Amino acid sequence: MSQYNIAIFGAGRIGGVHGGNITVHPDCKVSHVIDPFGDNAEKLAAKLEAVVATEAEALADASVDAIVIGSATNTHADLIEKGLKAGKAVFCEKPVDLSLARVEQLIEAIKGESKPLFIAFNRRFDPGIWAMHERIEAGAIGDVELATIISKDPEAPPLEYIQVAGGLLRDMTIHDFDMARFLLPEEPVRVTALASALTSDVVKSEGDLDTAVITLQTASGAIATITNSRRTTYGYDQRVEVHGSGGMLRTENMQPTRLIEENASGSVHEKPLYFFIERYQESYRNEWAHFVRVLKGEEQPICTIEDGRLALVLAEAAYKSLAEGRTVDVSEI
Amino acid sequence: MSQYNIAIFGAGRIGGVHGGNITVHPDCKVSHVIDPFGDNAEKLAAKLEAVVATEAEALADASVDAIVIGSATNTHADLIEKGLKAGKAVFCEKPVDLSLARVEQLIEAIKGESKPLFIAFNRRFDPGIWAMHERIEAGAIGDVELATIISKDPEAPPLEYIQVAGGLLRDMTIHDFDMARFLLPEEPVRVTALASALTSDVVKSEGDLDTAVITLQTASGAIATITNSRRTTYGYDQRVEVHGSGGMLRTENMQPTRLIEENASGSVHEKPLYFFIERYQESYRNEWAHFVRVLKGEEQPICTIEDGRLALVLAEAAYKSLAEGRTVDVSEI
Amino acid sequence: MSQYNIAIFGAGRIGGVHGGNITVHPDCKVSHVIDPFGDNAEKLAAKLEAVVATEAEALADASVDAIVIGSATNTHADLIEKGLKAGKAVFCEKPVDLSLARVEQLIEAIKGESKPLFIAFNRRFDPGIWAMHERIEAGAIGDVELATIISKDPEAPPLEYIQVAGGLLRDMTIHDFDMARFLLPEEPVRVTALASALTSDVVKSEGDLDTAVITLQTASGAIATITNSRRTTYGYDQRVEVHGSGGMLRTENMQPTRLIEENASGSVHEKPLYFFIERYQESYRNEWAHFVRVLKGEEQPICTIEDGRLALVLAEAAYKSLAEGRTVDVSEI
Amino acid sequence: MSQYNIAIFGAGRIGGVHGGNITVHPDCKVSHVIDPFGDNAEKLAAKLEAVVATEAEALADASVDAIVIGSATNTHADLIEKGLKAGKAVFCEKPVDLSLARVEQLIEAIKGESKPLFIAFNRRFDPGIWAMHERIEAGAIGDVELATIISKDPEAPPLEYIQVAGGLLRDMTIHDFDMARFLLPEEPVRVTALASALTSDVVKSEGDLDTAVITLQTASGAIATITNSRRTTYGYDQRVEVHGSGGMLRTENMQPTRLIEENASGSVHEKPLYFFIERYQESYRNEWAHFVRVLKGEEQPICTIEDGRLALVLAEAAYKSLAEGRTVDVSEI
Repeated sequence: MSQYNIAIFGAGRIGGVHGGNITVHPDCKVSHVIDPFGDNAEKLAAKLEAVVATEAEALADASVDAIVIGSATNTHADLIEKGLKAGKAVFCEKPVDLSLARVEQLIEAIKGESKPLFIAFNRRFDPGIWAMHERIEAGAIGDVELATIISKDPEAPPLEYIQVAGGLLRDMTIHDFDMARFLLPEEPVRVTALASALTSDVVKSEGDLDTAVITLQTASGAIATITNSRRTTYGYDQRVEVHGSGGMLRTENMQPTRLIEENASGSVHEKPLYFFIERYQESYRNEWAHFVRVLKGEEQPICTIEDGRLALVLAEAAYKSLAEGRTVDVSEI
Repeated sequence: MSQYNIAIFGAGRIGGVHGGNITVHPDCKVSHVIDPFGDNAEKLAAKLEAVVATEAEALADASVDAIVIGSATNTHADLIEKGLKAGKAVFCEKPVDLSLARVEQLIEAIKGESKPLFIAFNRRFDPGIWAMHERIEAGAIGDVELATIISKDPEAPPLEYIQVAGGLLRDMTIHDFDMARFLLPEEPVRVTALASALTSDVVKSEGDLDTAVITLQTASGAIATITNSRRTTYGYDQRVEVHGSGGMLRTENMQPTRLIEENASGSVHEKPLYFFIERYQESYRNEWAHFVRVLKGEEQPICTIEDGRLALVLAEAAYKSLAEGRTVDVSEI
Repeated sequence: MSQYNIAIFGAGRIGGVHGGNITVHPDCKVSHVIDPFGDNAEKLAAKLEAVVATEAEALADASVDAIVIGSATNTHADLIEKGLKAGKAVFCEKPVDLSLARVEQLIEAIKGESKPLFIAFNRRFDPGIWAMHERIEAGAIGDVELATIISKDPEAPPLEYIQVAGGLLRDMTIHDFDMARFLLPEEPVRVTALASALTSDVVKSEGDLDTAVITLQTASGAIATITNSRRTTYGYDQRVEVHGSGGMLRTENMQPTRLIEENASGSVHEKPLYFFIERYQESYRNEWAHFVRVLKGEEQPICTIEDGRLALVLAEAAYKSLAEGRTVDVSEI
Repeated sequence: MSQYNIAIFGAGRIGGVHGGNITVHPDCKVSHVIDPFGDNAEKLAAKLEAVVATEAEALADASVDAIVIGSATNTHADLIEKGLKAGKAVFCEKPVDLSLARVEQLIEAIKGESKPLFIAFNRRFDPGIWAMHERIEAGAIGDVELATIISKDPEAPPLEYIQVAGGLLRDMTIHDFDMARFLLPEEPVRVTALASALTSDVVKSEGDLDTAVITLQTASGAIATITNSRRTTYGYDQRVEVHGSGGMLRTENMQPTRLIEENASGSVHEKPLYFFIERYQESYRNEWAHFVRVLKGEEQPICTIEDGRLALVLAEAAYKSLAEGRTVDVSEI
């Protein structure tokens, strides 16, 4: 009874997450899996009862309604363009590309394409964040004046990942830039940042960063702060709070269970869920459900390529602030 | 690729929950749906891509590996017997029956049957409760001395349900009796209870109860208390704590999100999830996964008909305590 | 500028607590300290800048406005009578006496005395409990239907204390009986209990109890449960919740600070405060401030000898329930 | 029996707080109250059983052991100098002065004075902050990498206060600069800031700020962020968290009680305590106890004039960052 056939590009971890959600969604199924590493493709395809295909085969197959791009970052822009031009709806993992120029070129190239393009900033679809956004929109806290985003990974990625990820701010903070934009009442116009490499020799030797605070200000004076680290010892730390003229909204970390153990050490609550796959499980499910509603024409994509571009612009502004030791106007980028 | 075909008896709400979990489980699918109300059966079968069948057809179909009994309580015992005798593994919703005599008769009748029978006390499979049980088994809190079970429904069921449910203690508290048995170090041997009808005229006019405290004691002196109400204004209240010689374990209620709103009213956390379908969503999923492992021969059923019988014995003892105004020895039942 | 001179009977720990609160209260001071152990009296008197006196001297001294009775339990009733008859206002630690007959005889004996008598059930004056009581009175949770009182000491008292304390229910649970009466909408009329001796050999060999659950019911059907233990490993466990037709009120344990440590073990909150001196520090201060307002004629005593008697009646009813294995009518006592 | 006579300069709110703590401390008493507004001085002196005096009288009185400076900010530096030169120990409210030049001049002027000088950064003495500091010192979270300080007042001060307070960063943030220094492993060397005037027309028309984020970095790369607002609707928001290589420490807001009300609106915890007098009640008591130990020669002042100076240097650096739109080296100030 599935209405939509989906081709997944990239049979890695995130491809598996989307594959699982697509499979249990009543209105779609995975038809093709495409991955340069044949083994991965075979395994995922077998699990999802799909077929392995090449890029060309999948794009040429008229039965494919939409593609999910979960492959390497440097393939995203090309696949977006090819997918839209082949008449497929496109669901693309962030980031669109590490190069702002390439993103802008792509925007030009796909102008006029009629199929929807969704850029997957999954955190917007977290039930707590979504409820926060709706409460803000409903005026529950009045005018938004401050947003505080704390976002820390449990551990740094491996060397090979760091080498291609484009740096902390384009890889990890990009989610937080989008979150700030999602929660602030208007676009940030000014950026200042301080950052360090503290958690591992690999990060240092690659010239990357792992500890950062970035502050953004809008034209009317609302301020957002992003605090990042690539290392915790206690799980994935994902907390957001928004302070307004009439109150404050904040989300606490999520734990596997609400079990508490009271003993001579104290009142011990469980650690937060380990990482994004566990923490944002429901977000991934919700963003897929949104994308299906986009396919049905019931909704417009909540995150567009323009959102992808603007998050990247903020990353570039923050890097410029770090390099030049000054507050940078977003219009300079 | 599904290994197991499952026939679902009862196309109501709980049948739908199990149907959904069966469908997304990689190793099984729903093959048949059986319900005296043809419309319900049609709807659920369509959703699950199964066929509608009669009881006789389903039990006679050699392709059916197991049956799920989610039909009216007065059909449970018969279906368990017929299912096992037809060579099907059986997954049966609690209670086995409202009559202890009928349960004991059934136990006799199915002696020697080789297929597994699982009685679905879903709460044991809640991740928090399960973790609590494992921590107790691991000795984390030493010897268990006190268990405090607070279990309150958001609202009383409708008149028609009350009329066939067998009374508060056999219908609702039965879960808590099982929970007490699951967490205590040994079987309760003494029971005392006080109860009232406070929340609705329907409950009163039917001679039922809606507010109760039942206390159980084991031979070595451990004590469990169950507090029940059929009415909250703030969602489903499901909290358990176990106090031992070396510490305490307790679970807090689960909310839809961890969003907190701070304003002039205070620090407002979300209400607990509304009712069992929402609160125990993961328990239902986990108990189904357990049942599949039972089908594969990897595990023995965690809850058996003996667990069903013993929970009912405690309900009978509590009713006797209420009727006679005294502490009742479980051996009297 | 102090308006009131206070004589303290009993220079032990609780005498010291009251002495400290009296001293820092702007309207009173400790004038005399009386204790059969001269050393204790000397030390406390020196600290409080008071004089050591005999019982007779203190009662005969016209400058003494009120007496605080914090001496051994078996002296309470006599001192209440002598104090009132000497024209002193009386602040007496619970219990009035371990014998209900003696309490009733005392009530007769002091009929007509004009000075106020306050029985110090300190927990009513805890800010959280007091706020709970006020919210209930204001109708915030509608009709009270269930009260759940969890009250556990960190450790059992020493042998010498156990030998004179009158048993768990008259010594420790007496506070919880008063709490139940304070929070329920009407007097309990029925009592049932189960109890054990689990935490120490001393408790067992003295024939005392240390683990108990007592359930009380009022005429209209409201139910209160008290859960006691004489041993925790995690501090003083003092939680109360009251469930009504319109909502629920509950208090959490108090910790020394709100510091949380997040690490590989979990999210570790501090243990609750160790015991009553720490936990009810503010209650003791508040009850003294109340007593001064009583001295000034601004308020009537919130806890009277009748409250002392009724708590003891519930203890007797609970002991009778344990002895006879049945639900006991309070009117039987 | 009091060992130390204390003269209080300034009979306003903070003078009253210190006066109360001095009076209940067993080792000292308030002997003199000095205030240009005679009425205030009379009232406080009457309450504390002290005498009203002029500055000259108090400083000349050989019985005065120490002075507490709680008068207007522009009198602090003069009184520190006069007090020390009169041979009095000095307890001075922050800030030392609004002018860094004046502070430096004062440091020169008092070189060689032998009596102790304590600058009252009260928050260090909050039990939660103090415990956090001790856990950090004990290595509980490894190397400190990030400090997040959220500090928001419930409302902006009145116009007259704003006009003399020296601006948000010198008046309010000064506490947070000290907190950052107290928790970071080394001095900050770089500062960047963004700030706005959002909460009131008075703040705007006076050219002051009320919403700010200041980020500090140390030479080894640790980063601290301070988030300020002059307006909440939910009480005084005072939260600190410190993230290290081995874990995280954080403090939650303190509420009047731990009462929770569960109803259709959610799970409603009490608001945080209203403002600094309530929230830091215990800090004020603890810092006074510390000062008495300094008087006794048992401890060295925990906060010195150098701490006062360094907090002011950070405020100047932050203002420079705002004015010049760049990251400022602390050494530039």
